Amino acid sequence: MNYHVLTLFPEMILQGLNTSITGRALEKGILSLEAINIRDFSENKHNKVDDYPYGGGAGMVMAAGPVYRAYEHTAEKIKKSCISDNAEKKPRVIYLTPQGKVFHQNIAEELAEEEDLIFLCGHYEGIDERVLEMIVTDYISIGDYVLTGGELPAMVMIDAISRLIPGVLNNDVSAEFESLQDNLLEYPQYTRPEVFMGKMVPEVLLSGHHGNVEQWRRQQSIIRTAQNRPDLLEKAHLSEDEKKFLKSNFKE
Amino acid sequence: MNYHVLTLFPEMILQGLNTSITGRALEKGILSLEAINIRDFSENKHNKVDDYPYGGGAGMVMAAGPVYRAYEHTAEKIKKSCISDNAEKKPRVIYLTPQGKVFHQNIAEELAEEEDLIFLCGHYEGIDERVLEMIVTDYISIGDYVLTGGELPAMVMIDAISRLIPGVLNNDVSAEFESLQDNLLEYPQYTRPEVFMGKMVPEVLLSGHHGNVEQWRRQQSIIRTAQNRPDLLEKAHLSEDEKKFLKSNFKE
Repeated sequence: MNYHVLTLFPEMILQGLNTSITGRALEKGILSLEAINIRDFSENKHNKVDDYPYGGGAGMVMAAGPVYRAYEHTAEKIKKSCISDNAEKKPRVIYLTPQGKVFHQNIAEELAEEEDLIFLCGHYEGIDERVLEMIVTDYISIGDYVLTGGELPAMVMIDAISRLIPGVLNNDVSAEFESLQDNLLEYPQYTRPEVFMGKMVPEVLLSGHHGNVEQWRRQQSIIRTAQNRPDLLEKAHLSEDEKKFLKSNFKE
Repeated sequence: MNYHVLTLFPEMILQGLNTSITGRALEKGILSLEAINIRDFSENKHNKVDDYPYGGGAGMVMAAGPVYRAYEHTAEKIKKSCISDNAEKKPRVIYLTPQGKVFHQNIAEELAEEEDLIFLCGHYEGIDERVLEMIVTDYISIGDYVLTGGELPAMVMIDAISRLIPGVLNNDVSAEFESLQDNLLEYPQYTRPEVFMGKMVPEVLLSGHHGNVEQWRRQQSIIRTAQNRPDLLEKAHLSEDEKKFLKSNFKE
């Protein structure tokens, strides 16, 4: 997977994804990441990239020209690096915006299949609508909150997508059995010591009885989801026994 | 506002928030940010902070001890720095987890009122449940997707909260009139030039007629929200004229 991030803050992207699991995958060459500075494509002598909004209002708007040229430069480079039959395929361009579709694990899975992804990070009051219409293929929001720019959302998406790419996580099992699987929240985890400040590990986990451990964990997941995210629980696939268990624990 | 982030990757936090608007507010002293390395609180000679999960399963779990000691060290420091009557108030401790309440602009507004916030970032398969029960006050998820750790979500929350703190944004107007205001998505923005690659700025924005501009923008917001986020539109406050406009444009 090759990530290309169009941004006014390239160092933020590079430094922020440099560490931890993404950093290791970049080192190993499983992923590549480049941050393209939109400011380098300004034709203004002061490298200005923003201007006042037509129609008035607070803040500044990022002009169409520099964004378009940064995109063209990147798309051209991707095209050259592509092997024969993929050369005509246009890369997806993701614009991070509160106006977009809300990001979800399913979208991460879909995007993990791509070879190249371009992320466009806005700042100030956004980007001139005309260039968005010309280049953007996906408008995505990471949630219903307002951020100062698109860089952190791009990093969040890159992190979520990367860990689905084979070889990025050390044990492939980890990506499977985990949070949000089957719309249930994850069960509580415990590790040594057996007693921490007077608190015991639940006995069933020390029993060595695999079946009981599995049942307990699944029940914990169901309880947590019912308590914290009833909206998810509606979409979960519960067995008849589990439905009974849920009913006896949560009387509505 | 003073942020304290308990993490295994302190440099990721510091570098990632060093730039742009948060960076400027840190320089000006409107915000303070410290990243506390949980590994420094390991009592293991190899500085190990994780161990196998009780009951089996893939991955490793972060042990209770180092997390608890990192928290205690931080809470103690906050207590010492507090002025008289606030000294007994325990700081809020936010644990970033897909198991949490979904982050939203309202939560950002509420948290922006605090003086100190502690963020706890998990990694691997999570943190020993017992220490979470002892120290965490808020379980928060930034969305329904799985990430490699809590650092990016903490940065996202810090960014969203910071821009609501007076003095962080250059013009205070900007924080008000913007995305998600009144549950409507933002209208499209345009800046110079008037014609970009054959595309014109909408005429109304060049008219200088303030009332017409406002009406057009509001209608654009309504159209966008109806198209992209009908779930938000249900909560928006529309005038009778706007309801009629919506009906004539979107026949269900």
